[in-house]
Amino acid sequence: MDTLTRMLSTHPKVGALNADLLAACLQACLECEAICALCADACLSEDEHLHHLTRCISLNTQCAAVCHAAASVLSTPGQGDHQLMRAQLQACLSACRACAEECEAHARDMGMAHCGVCAESCRRCEQACQALLGSLSA
Amino acid sequence: MDTLTRMLSTHPKVGALNADLLAACLQACLECEAICALCADACLSEDEHLHHLTRCISLNTQCAAVCHAAASVLSTPGQGDHQLMRAQLQACLSACRACAEECEAHARDMGMAHCGVCAESCRRCEQACQALLGSLSA
Amino acid sequence: MDTLTRMLSTHPKVGALNADLLAACLQACLECEAICALCADACLSEDEHLHHLTRCISLNTQCAAVCHAAASVLSTPGQGDHQLMRAQLQACLSACRACAEECEAHARDMGMAHCGVCAESCRRCEQACQALLGSLSA
Amino acid sequence: MDTLTRMLSTHPKVGALNADLLAACLQACLECEAICALCADACLSEDEHLHHLTRCISLNTQCAAVCHAAASVLSTPGQGDHQLMRAQLQACLSACRACAEECEAHARDMGMAHCGVCAESCRRCEQACQALLGSLSA
Repeated sequence: MDTLTRMLSTHPKVGALNADLLAACLQACLECEAICALCADACLSEDEHLHHLTRCISLNTQCAAVCHAAASVLSTPGQGDHQLMRAQLQACLSACRACAEECEAHARDMGMAHCGVCAESCRRCEQACQALLGSLSA
Repeated sequence: MDTLTRMLSTHPKVGALNADLLAACLQACLECEAICALCADACLSEDEHLHHLTRCISLNTQCAAVCHAAASVLSTPGQGDHQLMRAQLQACLSACRACAEECEAHARDMGMAHCGVCAESCRRCEQACQALLGSLSA
Repeated sequence: MDTLTRMLSTHPKVGALNADLLAACLQACLECEAICALCADACLSEDEHLHHLTRCISLNTQCAAVCHAAASVLSTPGQGDHQLMRAQLQACLSACRACAEECEAHARDMGMAHCGVCAESCRRCEQACQALLGSLSA
Repeated sequence: MDTLTRMLSTHPKVGALNADLLAACLQACLECEAICALCADACLSEDEHLHHLTRCISLNTQCAAVCHAAASVLSTPGQGDHQLMRAQLQACLSACRACAEECEAHARDMGMAHCGVCAESCRRCEQACQALLGSLSA
């Protein structure tokens, strides 16, 4: 999604934010939100294993919502509040970690391929949030 | 919105959460999200004062997104993650405080009535998040 | 949520919209979104009946998303596009009807109390969308 | 975002949907949502031209919300409702068209580069919705 980088380059006031880290984090949040929603729906379609996947569906749903808020906050870089951005990135990091741990277990123990893809996406988003948080604190 | 309380009373696994504080916080988040979105739109319609309200519009937009995520997380009480819920409530509290401070200034200094209503809604949501957070830590 | 009505009364450009129907529809969309999300989570917690409720969870999830978009569109009454608003209200009406039909069946046939509350909320939202659509066409 | 295609290939019940058109439309909706939110924020930062861009900000905000709902509905392909999906795609198509027209005018008449990028993204999303709608009707 190179379009995000192009869009940020036209923004008159991206300000003190590192545009590369911002674009990478925004893209990771968007992807993670969609992948989590798809993982919840795929889990719901696993007739035989469904009873073992209900907590996974809950965490997928929560993680998608938190990633969406992070993406929205990152889409308002012009005059936004850095303290607020930091708090939402922290929540996103926490949600991605919890969801990744749950999905990794199902990928490993039950061979759930969608959980494996979702865990990777959550870990990427966790790292992108961490990287952007690091640049905000500096 | 008594319907929320009624709905929570039918939920088979609300678990360790205090249902009254949960319903109150969920309602406050829903209201605050909508009020912030309306305040952004009202500010955008203030022809004469618009240039003084751009940061308010940004904070309204961010606060609405963060409140929405908090409402979504609170709507998954069955098997959700308390650590994740705590982080999102913390982000919501932080967003509501930032938005309330901005709106209070515009209500006081420029007589912006919508900012006054919005500030009240943000403060109520901030307090409801604080109360629920207190019960989670206990 | 009287606060919505108060907020709309401070908006400088609500324009051609009927403020009472707008506030009622906005409130119905917010409530329906939250109730659908809670119904999905409650269904997911119904250990014994879970396999019969997977389509209900899908429809709850879709309906919550569509109601949220309708609420967002209605929160931008100042200079928004009426054609766009009409299309989103139509989608919302369609989602609420589908979800209500599914939930009514589970309330009747399996005694699912949360589906009963959800069906009522969906029907209220369907009617509020219909009423606002009627006033837009007039 | 090849990850979406990979994820859909692991989904046990994508059913009657064309997975390629679904992945393309989902990706277009996610991108359009983020680009519209960034365009609104960029417009808000255009000190000198701000007064000419308020309707653009409103349409950006509405379009982002409608695209988000479309992405959510498309992320529930397992047991979702095709009538509901069709209605939300129709709303998305309508929102993207309205927003593209507004942004194209600002790109052309005022040289607003972010509006140019946003118009392209809206047109891509409009076409992706059209293509998926065509396959659903077939």
